Amino acid sequence: MINPTAAMLVIGDEILSGRTRDSNMHHLAGELTKHGITLAEARFVADDPDAIVASVRALSQGYDHVFTSGGIGPTHDDITADSIAAAFGVSIDVRADARALLEAHYARTGTELNDARLRMARIPAGATLIDNPISIAPGFTIENVHVMAGVPTIFEAMVASVLPTLTGGAPLLSQSLRVERGEGEIAAPLGQLAKDFPDLSFGSYPFNHNGAFGTNIVVRGQDGAKVDVAMTELARMVQQ
Amino acid sequence: MINPTAAMLVIGDEILSGRTRDSNMHHLAGELTKHGITLAEARFVADDPDAIVASVRALSQGYDHVFTSGGIGPTHDDITADSIAAAFGVSIDVRADARALLEAHYARTGTELNDARLRMARIPAGATLIDNPISIAPGFTIENVHVMAGVPTIFEAMVASVLPTLTGGAPLLSQSLRVERGEGEIAAPLGQLAKDFPDLSFGSYPFNHNGAFGTNIVVRGQDGAKVDVAMTELARMVQQ
Repeated sequence: MINPTAAMLVIGDEILSGRTRDSNMHHLAGELTKHGITLAEARFVADDPDAIVASVRALSQGYDHVFTSGGIGPTHDDITADSIAAAFGVSIDVRADARALLEAHYARTGTELNDARLRMARIPAGATLIDNPISIAPGFTIENVHVMAGVPTIFEAMVASVLPTLTGGAPLLSQSLRVERGEGEIAAPLGQLAKDFPDLSFGSYPFNHNGAFGTNIVVRGQDGAKVDVAMTELARMVQQ
Repeated sequence: MINPTAAMLVIGDEILSGRTRDSNMHHLAGELTKHGITLAEARFVADDPDAIVASVRALSQGYDHVFTSGGIGPTHDDITADSIAAAFGVSIDVRADARALLEAHYARTGTELNDARLRMARIPAGATLIDNPISIAPGFTIENVHVMAGVPTIFEAMVASVLPTLTGGAPLLSQSLRVERGEGEIAAPLGQLAKDFPDLSFGSYPFNHNGAFGTNIVVRGQDGAKVDVAMTELARMVQQ
């Protein structure tokens, strides 16, 4: 069985300038793997409409699902929603259901729903809303693109809202073995295993911890019994 | 003055599966900003030759510099060097100068230079070597693409080797102001400032720290005096 594929698009100058370190991609990667969806590509672009439109189109055509993070909010530099609408050639405006969510929320908290905040109710035509239990302003799904906030707590809540609605595949299982030997010494046995088990994947990740070199070897696959057999074989080979 | 642009390409299944969290992009972003080079895009792709070749070509044509991380090493799944050679249509083979570096290093440490390790001396024709003071196996530069290891300590050492050889621009200066007000309240003054100071950039980054909402506002530009003036004006506006 081939799992569905996904791509992520992270939008924001602050990550590319090194001011902020992104955590959303790592979170999404783990959640998708558990759900049996393969994250095949991620792109980070600046707050630039042309870059967003081009990336959304390319990723939407190339993968089953696209998840975006960042650039939705009340300020002048939040241009994601407009760029997504442009990418799909649809109109965008304040929508009644999104506006009602914000009105109720700000009435409860005694805050003014000003023009800036109302921008967060701008939704491309034909999109469905994504629930935001943290700060209410919704994300949205249009075609196969899920548009979510960049603030990690809100992003994570939106991912939790969206994932159960998607059909996943078989979760990818993995086992790892840590060996105190350089990658160069286990390369040959690993190459042999990759030939013997064509439907498993083998990765080797060298580490350098306090001056000690070694390698983590990871075996991944959808068939747990096969992963077990390969791990046993691997342990035998590298411990000779 | 317009600064040179750069893109990053991070190669590796282990990051897209969520097993490992990348730190190289955040490091490179900060170093480039200090050096006056604008990181405009980053892409993460799997250990897949077609994906690497397509990304290298697109990024090499789109930006002044490209920095890659990961997928060079002795094992069967390190296919970066071959893919880079394919992207530029050049041959690749073990090269004498790279082989000499490895021979001297492994002789010193009493380790066998086996076939797997010798793979690390495979260099595309026409490339120049990038110094690796940590584990010796070199990176390389071909055209405008700098190919570096994925292990963070080695990646960082290679960045330090490459950056002084590149012409930078004016470093981007930034100042930030933390306000205990929601993004929706400072959106209007920020929009006005963006109009008044067209050669500065203004970003607002909402935070949610232990239940308290607020916004970090960042003003960036190459002219420090202008950034000062804008910050003073900003403080006056949001503290009214």
